[in-house]
Amino acid sequence: MTVHRTLKVELGDRSYPIVIGTGLLGSGFDLPKWIAGPDCLVVSNETVAPIYAATLRKALAGKDTRTVTLRDGEAFKTLASVEIIIDELVASGANRDVTVIALGGGVVGDVGGFAAACYMRGVPFIQVPTTLLAQVDSSVGGKTGVNHAGGKNLIGAFHQPRLVLIDIDTLSTLPNRQFSAGMAEVIKHAAILDAEYFAWLESNIDALMHRDAGLLAQAIHRSCEIKAEVVASDEKERGRRALLNFGHTFGHAIENCSGYGEWLHGEAVAAGMIMAAELSGLPATERNRLRTLVAAAGLPVTPPAVGAMALRAAMDLDKKVRQKKLRFVLLKSIGEAYVGYPDEADRLDSVLEAANTDS
Amino acid sequence: MTVHRTLKVELGDRSYPIVIGTGLLGSGFDLPKWIAGPDCLVVSNETVAPIYAATLRKALAGKDTRTVTLRDGEAFKTLASVEIIIDELVASGANRDVTVIALGGGVVGDVGGFAAACYMRGVPFIQVPTTLLAQVDSSVGGKTGVNHAGGKNLIGAFHQPRLVLIDIDTLSTLPNRQFSAGMAEVIKHAAILDAEYFAWLESNIDALMHRDAGLLAQAIHRSCEIKAEVVASDEKERGRRALLNFGHTFGHAIENCSGYGEWLHGEAVAAGMIMAAELSGLPATERNRLRTLVAAAGLPVTPPAVGAMALRAAMDLDKKVRQKKLRFVLLKSIGEAYVGYPDEADRLDSVLEAANTDS
Repeated sequence: MTVHRTLKVELGDRSYPIVIGTGLLGSGFDLPKWIAGPDCLVVSNETVAPIYAATLRKALAGKDTRTVTLRDGEAFKTLASVEIIIDELVASGANRDVTVIALGGGVVGDVGGFAAACYMRGVPFIQVPTTLLAQVDSSVGGKTGVNHAGGKNLIGAFHQPRLVLIDIDTLSTLPNRQFSAGMAEVIKHAAILDAEYFAWLESNIDALMHRDAGLLAQAIHRSCEIKAEVVASDEKERGRRALLNFGHTFGHAIENCSGYGEWLHGEAVAAGMIMAAELSGLPATERNRLRTLVAAAGLPVTPPAVGAMALRAAMDLDKKVRQKKLRFVLLKSIGEAYVGYPDEADRLDSVLEAANTDS
Repeated sequence: MTVHRTLKVELGDRSYPIVIGTGLLGSGFDLPKWIAGPDCLVVSNETVAPIYAATLRKALAGKDTRTVTLRDGEAFKTLASVEIIIDELVASGANRDVTVIALGGGVVGDVGGFAAACYMRGVPFIQVPTTLLAQVDSSVGGKTGVNHAGGKNLIGAFHQPRLVLIDIDTLSTLPNRQFSAGMAEVIKHAAILDAEYFAWLESNIDALMHRDAGLLAQAIHRSCEIKAEVVASDEKERGRRALLNFGHTFGHAIENCSGYGEWLHGEAVAAGMIMAAELSGLPATERNRLRTLVAAAGLPVTPPAVGAMALRAAMDLDKKVRQKKLRFVLLKSIGEAYVGYPDEADRLDSVLEAANTDS
């Protein structure tokens, strides 16, 4: 089966399509058509490359294709990995026509995209995301970059891909925990901007968790559509794009307290969304709907048992680093989010206390 | 004296002014007005910082200003220098409001600009070029970046400054050889696009070489104007911007043959322009005008005595690396340039032979 649907991210002369379907990495999609020059560099990692790199290389028949295989994990989202990619581009004598293709999850996309942004001040870039998180989140928006010892994503560039190719078949090899982490972002998109989509997710969560390809294609399409619409209206993240941070202020505190890597980003965001809904003062029925959906997606609904004080301290540190007030994305109702600065001293502490009592 | 003139580089929402004058680093210009946030990072080098950093910091009164002092020279135009700057930004807790100010020549501008382009995916950037070359060339166009062991400027970004502040007083401390190297670019601008400007340079070359501030301000203004006009019409270097490479195909070959650093870039371009004029088949009177002006600017009119074969080999290597035909910017007449692919086998070799016989 090679049905696919296409979604266009509207960014003027940097617009690009997201193609979503099954069998796309095989013969189901004419990938070479999207590559102007003779050369490609596939950037992948040690986990994904053994499974999918050969298929992708076959799809690139006729192109002079090299592959860089990075080590797997957030720990390798570094400038050193970018240098490995650039060294390979230089060694192969690649010029401005070379197309960099990221095959893997968010880290591969961020690192590969940043290398493409910097090499000769920018060469064409294609994303082939193979995790649900990368498919619905990091493949839309043009954010690329790496971590610094002093903080995540501190070094990077906005560099829009020419094409995002989402082959749902790649999700078949994704571990359950990673799949659930991706679902956290899917739920987030519905919760902040689309009540109807949220209800659809509630109706279909079991089949989605069984990775029904047709439903997944619909969910990925709608999630990308929501994110694309937000990004198109605010490419450089000056305003509306902040809504996509729903659950993230709490989530970052959880990640900081539990040690990065212990909790996956999506898991921290999941528990963070529950707390943000609480802070929003949402009616109990709505809060329960969110909690039920998050749980059904195999995600945590309470933070790790580190205590309210530790979470609060992590948030205050974050606030100090950013030199600004703590900011939260809150829900007016399910499907309608806004950016708020609640009275921190009272409400925030009681939300943290309650969440930790639950955990 | 604090007279100054302003030129606007038109790039839509990335437009910025170039302010040219004397006394601007002191009290002659309201620099803090151009800095939105509370924090600045001045990037300079060990040669320029001792002379001008204190004055600049004084002009930044009221701002929380730190300084990074890089080592001096093209050898430090590296990713390692970019990391030094980013480490300092992270250590100071700088957020997206921080303004990076490059105080120095082309290397400082390129490295500082690239750090500003990458930090948090782009923070405000101001150029304070202190060499004639940087003032008329690298401060216009938004090119930032660093060298790679495999080639110059292979890693970088387009990142437009918010402001370019050219204080002609800083030229008083510039060594003669560096000053002449900057004049090569000034002559280039006139030769490719403005016959009247070329004639003006011929009339005023002696006073310019004596660094008459008023005439220098006029020359810098006109050169920036020409470059800005070319860049505005072709920001990402797809066509017309190539005209700025007049003398550069020969110049790069000279730099490659003589070892980088032996000949300054401007010197190589100077001799390269003479050869390109020869290749253009320009009448002897016009060729002599160019040769006389270049010589009057204290620049070489013949390549180093490495032999025609060595230069030709360097050009062929360059061609191979770029996977394309040798391309030259040629002159129809003084003030009118075009991109050409001359019959390489014959004309090119005889130009190289003739130039080497002269040298």
